[in-house]
Amino acid sequence: MIHFADAILDTCQEKNSRLVVGLDPHWHLIPESFKNQFGKAEIDKILVEYFCNVVDACLDVAVMFKPQMAFFEQFGIPGLQALVTLIDHIHEKGGLVLMDAKRNDIGSTAQAYARAFFGDENLPAGFASDALTVNGYLGSDGLQPFLKDLTKGIFVLVKTSNPSSGELQDLVLEDGRSVAAAMADQVAAMATSTLGTSGYGNSGAVIGATYPEHMQNLRKRLPHALLLVPGYGAQGGDEAAITAAFDRSGFGALINSSRAICFPKQWETHGFDAVRETALQSCAHINGLLPKK
Amino acid sequence: MIHFADAILDTCQEKNSRLVVGLDPHWHLIPESFKNQFGKAEIDKILVEYFCNVVDACLDVAVMFKPQMAFFEQFGIPGLQALVTLIDHIHEKGGLVLMDAKRNDIGSTAQAYARAFFGDENLPAGFASDALTVNGYLGSDGLQPFLKDLTKGIFVLVKTSNPSSGELQDLVLEDGRSVAAAMADQVAAMATSTLGTSGYGNSGAVIGATYPEHMQNLRKRLPHALLLVPGYGAQGGDEAAITAAFDRSGFGALINSSRAICFPKQWETHGFDAVRETALQSCAHINGLLPKK
Repeated sequence: MIHFADAILDTCQEKNSRLVVGLDPHWHLIPESFKNQFGKAEIDKILVEYFCNVVDACLDVAVMFKPQMAFFEQFGIPGLQALVTLIDHIHEKGGLVLMDAKRNDIGSTAQAYARAFFGDENLPAGFASDALTVNGYLGSDGLQPFLKDLTKGIFVLVKTSNPSSGELQDLVLEDGRSVAAAMADQVAAMATSTLGTSGYGNSGAVIGATYPEHMQNLRKRLPHALLLVPGYGAQGGDEAAITAAFDRSGFGALINSSRAICFPKQWETHGFDAVRETALQSCAHINGLLPKK
Repeated sequence: MIHFADAILDTCQEKNSRLVVGLDPHWHLIPESFKNQFGKAEIDKILVEYFCNVVDACLDVAVMFKPQMAFFEQFGIPGLQALVTLIDHIHEKGGLVLMDAKRNDIGSTAQAYARAFFGDENLPAGFASDALTVNGYLGSDGLQPFLKDLTKGIFVLVKTSNPSSGELQDLVLEDGRSVAAAMADQVAAMATSTLGTSGYGNSGAVIGATYPEHMQNLRKRLPHALLLVPGYGAQGGDEAAITAAFDRSGFGALINSSRAICFPKQWETHGFDAVRETALQSCAHINGLLPKK
């Protein structure tokens, strides 16, 4: 059993990649010609077949796969059953699962969520994941239950990539910190208390690439936290923000791309080869943005 | 089709109740003698049978039923299937469902969550709910998708009932407001923009009864928001905080009790009659705490 952050650093080095492939079943983006191979009611089969193909195409380049739970949950039980099949497939192929579910609740309930995604000695995980996105608005007693198993990691929302993220996260405290910086300081403490031999802890932070002015400051506050950086690709994230997310060795950050990789323009002519090609290009592009040594 | 907040006010008046009955399947609290009627693997049947009985016992006194999704999700697909059966049962009996799932994400993903719980013109809801708890850390673009259907409501986390809630929520901004107060002001604006004839809007707020010093200030900031007040009962909430949650007419707040009602001490001797008795007593106790006119 290997420490979560250490396993991630190893994987980044082995694959020479910092790319997380997001699996977001936007229904209208799944090509019609693919959907037409199935019956109209076979939504679960379509989700499983399409995204297992995406996984297979990206296996040697993706550090983790990040299913967005909302896009499965919107289809109810059949959608969630498809998610279970998909995560089983990722694990069978040796991949890692970062579940994007942004869970949050008080202590005893957070424990139940930890069981749902990480399992415990009595109950196997219903949605077996290696890491989970969480929301830290409730404070540390809502986060600690997710950090008991050192082979699992969390990514806490710090500065999100969406247009209205500043409404709360950019408010300035009387001590001069932003709300996002205060959240970062909480995450930093949890990262330090779960440190592996890699120098990184199991409590990471989500910081969007769409707000370059925040990245440098937040990275400094989080010397031992892995950063998960959404907003690359479809959301128009900034290259300087991506560079600033990495440590001096060119590690410590994971850049997520979802729509651009899962639904490339060339799918109609090249199928899942186009998915693979886009993932390889994204990985190389990110590697080209690493800080100069 | 009736406006959500108006429907809640009507229900409170009809039932002379401000009680929300939380449905939290803490596995170890379900009586052994009940579980022993089923096979060891029949977790889903146990959840459905136990909590449908709780619903039937509380139907005329509960303004809403609040399933805590984590306690179903921890059992994976069978647990969530049990949840679907339970919410169908609540709706068949004419009850209302407030799903406690604390969802939160960026705009396009929040839309997918809104579909999962409220449905839309193309897709029926997988987990059909009348209201949903949400986390507003991401700002308004993550909340607006939940407010499109005027027959549905949300309750945004403002000041939560857990011990560490102050770590972020009590931090003081340079303008003198707490983070929780800033969140309350966001909720107030959304409540005003979704106002019904009752004077209440569809964007409510979660404020724990465990922090009486915050309740009065936050209630004032939220003149048009329904308050959902957890922390009564098992968590030891304060009576003065409960009084302060109501408007001068004795409405506008919903007090949640979960464990005390679902798992009363007298279950072994009186079965679900003890559940009903506890719910009636809680309702009467809360009615006794209403502000004096």
